[in-house]
Amino acid sequence: MSPKITTELLKQLRQVMKSPKYVQEPVQAYIVPSGDAHQSEYIAPCDCRRAFISGFDGSAGTAIVTDQHAAMWTDGRYFLQAAHQMDNNWTLMKMGLKDTPTQEDWLVSVLPEGSKVGVDPFIIPADQWKRMSKALRSAGHDLVPIKENLIDTIWTDCPQRPCKPLITLDLSYTGVSWKDKIAALRSKMAERKVLWFVVTALDEVAWLFNLRGSDVEYNPVFFAYAVIGMNTIRLFIDGDRMTDPAVREHLQLDSTLEPEFKIQVIPYGSILSELQAVGAGLSPKDKVWLSDKASYAVTEAIPKAYQYLTPYTPICIAKAVKNASETEGMRRAHIKDAVALCELFNWLEKEVPKGTVTEIIAADKAEEFRSQQKDFVELSFATISSTGPNGAIIHYKPVPETNRTLSVNEIYLLDSGAQYKDGTTDVTRTMHFGTPSAYEKECFTCVLKGHIAVSAAIFPNGTKGHLLDSFARSALWDCGLDYLHGTGHGVGSFLNVHEGPCGISYKTFADEPLEAGMIVSDEPGYYEDGSFGIRIENVVLVIPAETKYNFKNRGSLTFEPLTLVPIQRKMIDVNLLTQKERNWVDNYHQKCREVVGAELERQGRHETLQWLIRETEPLLRAQ
Amino acid sequence: MSPKITTELLKQLRQVMKSPKYVQEPVQAYIVPSGDAHQSEYIAPCDCRRAFISGFDGSAGTAIVTDQHAAMWTDGRYFLQAAHQMDNNWTLMKMGLKDTPTQEDWLVSVLPEGSKVGVDPFIIPADQWKRMSKALRSAGHDLVPIKENLIDTIWTDCPQRPCKPLITLDLSYTGVSWKDKIAALRSKMAERKVLWFVVTALDEVAWLFNLRGSDVEYNPVFFAYAVIGMNTIRLFIDGDRMTDPAVREHLQLDSTLEPEFKIQVIPYGSILSELQAVGAGLSPKDKVWLSDKASYAVTEAIPKAYQYLTPYTPICIAKAVKNASETEGMRRAHIKDAVALCELFNWLEKEVPKGTVTEIIAADKAEEFRSQQKDFVELSFATISSTGPNGAIIHYKPVPETNRTLSVNEIYLLDSGAQYKDGTTDVTRTMHFGTPSAYEKECFTCVLKGHIAVSAAIFPNGTKGHLLDSFARSALWDCGLDYLHGTGHGVGSFLNVHEGPCGISYKTFADEPLEAGMIVSDEPGYYEDGSFGIRIENVVLVIPAETKYNFKNRGSLTFEPLTLVPIQRKMIDVNLLTQKERNWVDNYHQKCREVVGAELERQGRHETLQWLIRETEPLLRAQ
Repeated sequence: MSPKITTELLKQLRQVMKSPKYVQEPVQAYIVPSGDAHQSEYIAPCDCRRAFISGFDGSAGTAIVTDQHAAMWTDGRYFLQAAHQMDNNWTLMKMGLKDTPTQEDWLVSVLPEGSKVGVDPFIIPADQWKRMSKALRSAGHDLVPIKENLIDTIWTDCPQRPCKPLITLDLSYTGVSWKDKIAALRSKMAERKVLWFVVTALDEVAWLFNLRGSDVEYNPVFFAYAVIGMNTIRLFIDGDRMTDPAVREHLQLDSTLEPEFKIQVIPYGSILSELQAVGAGLSPKDKVWLSDKASYAVTEAIPKAYQYLTPYTPICIAKAVKNASETEGMRRAHIKDAVALCELFNWLEKEVPKGTVTEIIAADKAEEFRSQQKDFVELSFATISSTGPNGAIIHYKPVPETNRTLSVNEIYLLDSGAQYKDGTTDVTRTMHFGTPSAYEKECFTCVLKGHIAVSAAIFPNGTKGHLLDSFARSALWDCGLDYLHGTGHGVGSFLNVHEGPCGISYKTFADEPLEAGMIVSDEPGYYEDGSFGIRIENVVLVIPAETKYNFKNRGSLTFEPLTLVPIQRKMIDVNLLTQKERNWVDNYHQKCREVVGAELERQGRHETLQWLIRETEPLLRAQ
Repeated sequence: MSPKITTELLKQLRQVMKSPKYVQEPVQAYIVPSGDAHQSEYIAPCDCRRAFISGFDGSAGTAIVTDQHAAMWTDGRYFLQAAHQMDNNWTLMKMGLKDTPTQEDWLVSVLPEGSKVGVDPFIIPADQWKRMSKALRSAGHDLVPIKENLIDTIWTDCPQRPCKPLITLDLSYTGVSWKDKIAALRSKMAERKVLWFVVTALDEVAWLFNLRGSDVEYNPVFFAYAVIGMNTIRLFIDGDRMTDPAVREHLQLDSTLEPEFKIQVIPYGSILSELQAVGAGLSPKDKVWLSDKASYAVTEAIPKAYQYLTPYTPICIAKAVKNASETEGMRRAHIKDAVALCELFNWLEKEVPKGTVTEIIAADKAEEFRSQQKDFVELSFATISSTGPNGAIIHYKPVPETNRTLSVNEIYLLDSGAQYKDGTTDVTRTMHFGTPSAYEKECFTCVLKGHIAVSAAIFPNGTKGHLLDSFARSALWDCGLDYLHGTGHGVGSFLNVHEGPCGISYKTFADEPLEAGMIVSDEPGYYEDGSFGIRIENVVLVIPAETKYNFKNRGSLTFEPLTLVPIQRKMIDVNLLTQKERNWVDNYHQKCREVVGAELERQGRHETLQWLIRETEPLLRAQ
């Protein structure tokens, strides 16, 4: 891929940074974060402002443009991609490396005395605003909110904000009605003596009302806010979506309801003025609960004395612990997803040697097989279909300029997933269609040992996921290998494929303890720049474990893989595995064969069933 | 031990909390933290105010007394001890358990509206003040500094602040002169554009000037502050300690020196007024560097706009990485310490069966053997000599009322260490003088597996110690066992046995990355309340590791044990160890035999040499 030429755009941006039409005083720097007004990770095209100005379209990154410089901060997943996509106007700031300055330190080092730094207050989370503002102020600069987004002023062909129809989910999918969810939220509010709760994250709005949308690709969410009082429910949403009879019935908009469950529908754009009205009506000691990741604009609409900010909202925490209906849905979704992937891998084994399968064709074929499954809605993220050196670009997405043909000489990495009405999947398998080298097998086996170490880990109740991260790395570390990303993330239930508040990462210390019913990914990897990438990822459910001494009745937890797709045995150097690890692989494959085999049989996919049976034979130790 | 009766004391404290003689307005709560004005962990008797008011004398704990309540926060090491030492006036708040409120939350829940909470501003660190003050303010209360310490007003027989002679350390011990240390500090100050640095931690003052003292038991430090400018050095210290000719020569007080190395000696009590004078002379953009753990009183002496606060000072970070002279000193100290412990264990094996050895006798004997070694100064902490159920009290110290006789029927745990002029030691061994049960051996072996997992861990440069903590727990977790303390702490070089900025703990996320030359402890354990305690502790040096692929030239690290004391083989269930673990134990014992054996030989301790040879035989696998 060739980099985006940004010279002219940067010139225009620097002009509007001085233009009295948009800024009260000229700003010497302008920050362009990744997110939208809801701090979403996946965003609608109209919100891809950082990609527009820089060319770098990975999921995480912050651009800062000053009069002289343009710099981009991103993490290890995106170092290569960002370097490829940005032109020489840009400096790449590799987060996580020792010598990389923070945004604040860098700004302080390049800005002239007494500078103003601008940012869109809807796009920057309140906690980041606070940190950045403090650091700048202590160095004599000012962070200032710029009402009009400056990128939008130069983005002449910016797409419209989407406003797609909604999907209603009944109890068989959600397990709990929206009214019960609101009642549970209100009891959490009462516990904390809070009068109002502002729902700003899109997946929290969707979960709370048992609604789904398609405003953002891959994430079944819709643009909305909600403000929940002890006796009122206000839903801020645009368009004629509330005229859909199914939605009206689902929300009981036309029924005679207890007044505390009566939903007021209000235009999306009125959130600030409504919040200001709420703020104006508060008495001393009244509190309004917001996520500390809500936008600065929304947070500041409530006077500081009334703000009650927490890193994770009660909705976020409740959403993470899946109930029986959701867990069963996730199991069903993963079985269907496994059927689709077994079909794909069987097909690839036959087609790759012909030299006709490109990364894009493989990705499309994966989507085709998935779309044949019941309740399929869309993919859960852009398929990472990468062969050879492309596999080392951790969040690679094949495009025509990079599209590479799969061959019997290279490692192929497929990280993909789907949204089904009953659950969300995310699975990575790495395979070779010829004969892997000893080194490739060694690396793969180290990654597999790490994957098993997490999956089979037993740990006491109350343990936070980040304490398990090193288990995934230990075998790699012993060889002097590592990977520059976390080991796992929370997964939504027909919702965002990445969700808080739990995860398994050396970077996260504010994660909430793992609890039975939470669902996370387990995905260690190894990446050799210019050569290959390896990752093995299952989605796993946190379940109670049985131990000999049970932590003095504190209880213990472990994981059950929901993903049931064979791990390619030819990539495994069996002699590097312990007996316990060999048993884990064989038991896992046995379960894949039984559970997915039965579904393949039911769907009449006999050829693929034979493939599955072959791929799930027990491991053989080399002589 | 029987609890301290505190009814009368609490009554007196509640009276002075209302007395206009001491407080401008009555306070509804008074906080009594652990520390002294330097936030020391180990404190002089005159600073043991929390122990005086509550009876609980563990190393960590915060008391809060309100009109109605008295509550004590402490961590898992001290749950049992605190419960034993405090009477019914006190509520024990078990930190780290899910349902335990924070001090702030608890205060908010018990205080009447608009309360004042008092604290001595010299005793509370600035970061804690800030957090506490903010939380109280947002609930309508106020945190107020009370100039006169209220405990001191009711502590009629409070001991005097000590003021003992100083020890000077020459280059053969320190490797770097105090002038070079000051020059290095000034270059760090210049890098951060800071004009002044305030040294508040006692071990930082001692390290910077290559001086030691004995004002505080176990920690070779002395009461002092220092304020370092780019051209001035001010040392705040009391008494006639500066009249000692050796000290005067060491600090070159009477020499013609470059002016920037001329030390001004100023009375200890003048620190606030001198700092206020420094603050008054600053220009905009000038900065004064302080630890964010410095006292609120010292921090507030500098106007907020000039404060530059960091969690770890450059002295703390420099001090943690031991140079070649310090490392060699630590090696020597640990060999001598091993000689003393081998003598002790040989003696215990003969004496314990006679039924005449108590915990106190064993501790005294350990000190006696240590004191025979060259350059011995004092113990590095109160010896934990504990048998049977006392072993489950993690930071137990035997006193006449609890003193138990060692026997062939109980597990004995000895956690002890010493200060030598060339280094500081800290070692725990757990042993049985009869026949351990299968369960005791199983627990011991799980702890040993954890100890080895950390000690043999290989990890990339830049890894923080807390990422290794779970390695120490994995084998225990598999059985449903755990321990409620961190796995390791930094160790000073003839300085505090606990020092920052590195460590190995699930609780610490602000630790600095491990670097070659850092020294930490590796001490997993297992504790069965009412029955026994097990801990295996070595002091280990961070050293470069060799790996097959060397993290793409990022380099890697591992640990070398400095402690060289045999691990009792009869406590090990060899069948629970992997081959790699058995090799580790045998190699470790081989090194103990070679290195400590040579020293025993040199010292003519032939009987103990025979004991050592016996105890370092290779492990035998049970048939």
